[in-house]
Amino acid sequence: MQTKNYQQLEKSFQQIADFEHLQALATWDESAMMPEGGGASRGRALSTLASLLNQRIKLLGPLIESSEQEDLSPEQRANVREAKLKWQLSSALPERLVEQSTQAGLECGQAWRKLRAENKFNELIPSLDRVIELTRESAGYLSEALGMPSHDALMQLYEPGLTCALIDPIFSELKENLPVILDEVLKKQSVQQTIPLKGEFSTTDQKSFGEWVMKNLGFDFNHGRLDTSHHPFCGGSPRDVRLTTRYKSDGFFDSLMGVVHETGHAKYEQNLPEQWFDQPVGRARGLAMHEGQSLFHEMQVARSRAYLKFLTPKMKEKFNHGLNQNTPGVWDAENIYHLATRVQPSLIRVESDEVTYPLHIILRYEIEKVWLSGDLQTADLPSVWNEFMQKYLGLSTLGDDRNGCMQDVHWPSGAIGYFPTYTLGAMVAAQLFEAATKKIPQLESQLERGEWAVLNNWLRENIWQKASFAKSTDEILTEATGHPLSAQSFLTHLRRRYL
Amino acid sequence: MQTKNYQQLEKSFQQIADFEHLQALATWDESAMMPEGGGASRGRALSTLASLLNQRIKLLGPLIESSEQEDLSPEQRANVREAKLKWQLSSALPERLVEQSTQAGLECGQAWRKLRAENKFNELIPSLDRVIELTRESAGYLSEALGMPSHDALMQLYEPGLTCALIDPIFSELKENLPVILDEVLKKQSVQQTIPLKGEFSTTDQKSFGEWVMKNLGFDFNHGRLDTSHHPFCGGSPRDVRLTTRYKSDGFFDSLMGVVHETGHAKYEQNLPEQWFDQPVGRARGLAMHEGQSLFHEMQVARSRAYLKFLTPKMKEKFNHGLNQNTPGVWDAENIYHLATRVQPSLIRVESDEVTYPLHIILRYEIEKVWLSGDLQTADLPSVWNEFMQKYLGLSTLGDDRNGCMQDVHWPSGAIGYFPTYTLGAMVAAQLFEAATKKIPQLESQLERGEWAVLNNWLRENIWQKASFAKSTDEILTEATGHPLSAQSFLTHLRRRYL
Repeated sequence: MQTKNYQQLEKSFQQIADFEHLQALATWDESAMMPEGGGASRGRALSTLASLLNQRIKLLGPLIESSEQEDLSPEQRANVREAKLKWQLSSALPERLVEQSTQAGLECGQAWRKLRAENKFNELIPSLDRVIELTRESAGYLSEALGMPSHDALMQLYEPGLTCALIDPIFSELKENLPVILDEVLKKQSVQQTIPLKGEFSTTDQKSFGEWVMKNLGFDFNHGRLDTSHHPFCGGSPRDVRLTTRYKSDGFFDSLMGVVHETGHAKYEQNLPEQWFDQPVGRARGLAMHEGQSLFHEMQVARSRAYLKFLTPKMKEKFNHGLNQNTPGVWDAENIYHLATRVQPSLIRVESDEVTYPLHIILRYEIEKVWLSGDLQTADLPSVWNEFMQKYLGLSTLGDDRNGCMQDVHWPSGAIGYFPTYTLGAMVAAQLFEAATKKIPQLESQLERGEWAVLNNWLRENIWQKASFAKSTDEILTEATGHPLSAQSFLTHLRRRYL
Repeated sequence: MQTKNYQQLEKSFQQIADFEHLQALATWDESAMMPEGGGASRGRALSTLASLLNQRIKLLGPLIESSEQEDLSPEQRANVREAKLKWQLSSALPERLVEQSTQAGLECGQAWRKLRAENKFNELIPSLDRVIELTRESAGYLSEALGMPSHDALMQLYEPGLTCALIDPIFSELKENLPVILDEVLKKQSVQQTIPLKGEFSTTDQKSFGEWVMKNLGFDFNHGRLDTSHHPFCGGSPRDVRLTTRYKSDGFFDSLMGVVHETGHAKYEQNLPEQWFDQPVGRARGLAMHEGQSLFHEMQVARSRAYLKFLTPKMKEKFNHGLNQNTPGVWDAENIYHLATRVQPSLIRVESDEVTYPLHIILRYEIEKVWLSGDLQTADLPSVWNEFMQKYLGLSTLGDDRNGCMQDVHWPSGAIGYFPTYTLGAMVAAQLFEAATKKIPQLESQLERGEWAVLNNWLRENIWQKASFAKSTDEILTEATGHPLSAQSFLTHLRRRYL
């Protein structure tokens, strides 16, 4: 059985994984550790590295082609298929453009961190313009290479197989149903009594509790750590996952849910099949599936009545002394559940509830589509943003760009076509949880006791270990749940939880 | 004026600097941040990167040769000279060997961290053997390429121009004089009354005070940070210097002096000439000059009567509440000075005083010489170490390898020929401080007020900004002080301070 070329291909990807390891580390460090003055040299180093990676992957065309002729196992064949996709995406882009885009994205990301705090959108325009121009150029190349429209082409970088055609009907269904659900929820919750968790909570307490919850969820601290950054994320590499969160001293719950969310991402990475870690097929399927894991943990489990029954006494033990007022009933699990499922249209996507969240995404999806096409100028982002916020959530962001179009790092860092994966992730999470509940009859009582073992096994077997052996998120989801991706389970979940 | 090739050479080194930036980051992270389980993939990534760097530098031979023919400025010419040295050192070693050495050094370094804590030298032998074998092989190649003996050849990696011939007379003078000085100091100090700083000092307090002192010294926190690791070091890159220290809860002074020491290294890096940062000539001259800066800060200044007059009331303010007993006189500047200059033969190099320190180095220098030659087996390191410790310091390390031959990370990480630079650094520091004192008549009173501006300017102009424009540490030192490197100023300093 001749697999000489394939073996060489694996070896090449092993080296590529080594460079990607350094890339992930330097990216994490930039957000979590780096002093501001290190930005310029970090930007250049990451740009040089991105260019090297692009060069290396580009060279693999002939090796991929000859590997395809060899006598491969199904896993190896899937690996070659994923390698080919990676190669296609890389070879579509000129090196010069990759380098410029990385550099521009990093510079704009760094400027964003400073200017967002100062609410100065106007000063961000030049670097944001540079980013969108380079992104349009990349989209043009990718569009030609893959034979699909620009916006679709960019999405392949984040979730292979994702297209506007797949998104549009799901988003339509959401746009049709969410306003109705939202109205009813707000009406119902307007008469609900909740006692807020107001107080003063030290970062030390919040961090140690977050780490305790991470352990309960099954995060492996021998292969990861928790730090702080402006925008929470899950980075690093499967054997060394780097989570970040941010803390507010007057509340711990949002940050805690952020930790749970990122831990969902982290568990996917830590539980990918070890023998394939460094090969294309060993990676997570895509960002929609990834977000499916984080929202599964945060929305489906951690904000559920069942898990909050387990978590509430632990929170009380840790944070009771920090409360401003020890109002009777504040630590009732039912009160915490009401706080955790409070719906309130708000300006900030990452702080918004699961009912309004998809509207934040639909807004971004619709804006980036026209911005990418060139029909919307960068300078007009604030006004269009405000207009859409009024329309979808009845809120104004006039003069408040830090809480409007400047709130996310994605666009400044050059990620266009990324946002839809968040809401598709919510669909994935609901669909998976519905299936898990059917397969594991004792799930609810297990979660009430904080027992994750059976659920983790189910996810490991049905999702995590499948890595990218299947062609798409849809395929893995269909195998695991019996249905392709749709808004159905999500809407059912909302109605069941909120109405 | 044709400088086409030279411009290309600069561009190549710009890219090399980008990769070295990532290498420095990943190395710092490995010691300061990485969870243990990330070790294997980090080791592989660093090994792949080292191999890439070696490949890139090796390719530069023809470009260096053609640059030498061009019409260059003196600075550019010096840059080509330094590039050539780097190229010579790289091209002497086969890629395979560079990769194996990096990997072996990282694996042994990781094992060392674990096994030192457990005092298990025997278990370290296999990986240490692997390291010394690969180092011997490297030394052989370097020896042939540079036409010098193996031990000398390895030293070129750390301090260009350093040879046993330069070290031996200095070390001989030290071996002759130090035992006599040591005897007298011990006699003198045996009747000195000192009140120890015993107590319980939080890491938070120690860290914030360390950062305050770093600021006083002129460390730029916009281009660096302070963290914790097993073995304190100064890493990172000039625009983003990463210092580490370690804390003990029962004392703050050793750790603080460690912070000052590493800050001396950091200031050298942060004050290299910015327009040459990424070129070979823009780097620090060598490790002896580097250690000269750290020991200048720690030994010449921070442990001096003058600076301790400034520092003592600040330490009192921060740490008084942590003292076990508030004995009268404990915070007298003279008491602190006596504590800071206490001489006591001890097992641990990094905790030892400046009188006995050179004996720790001479011991290592003499042992590594025979170990490298193959005349000493790895398994026999503990017994030889014990024998030399008995001879030089009258102390035994029998059965206590964690405080004997396992105390340093250098040998496990593959650094042979590195230790002598520490004691040459002490010579550099004393010689520089003697010269600075002559040039800055008000230096003592400035240091009593914690004013570093004039001294920093003198160092910036005479040392830091000179980077590697001069060929050797000796050349820079002769320009700055009027004398070549010798043990003279150091011995004068010891006699003045201690006798």
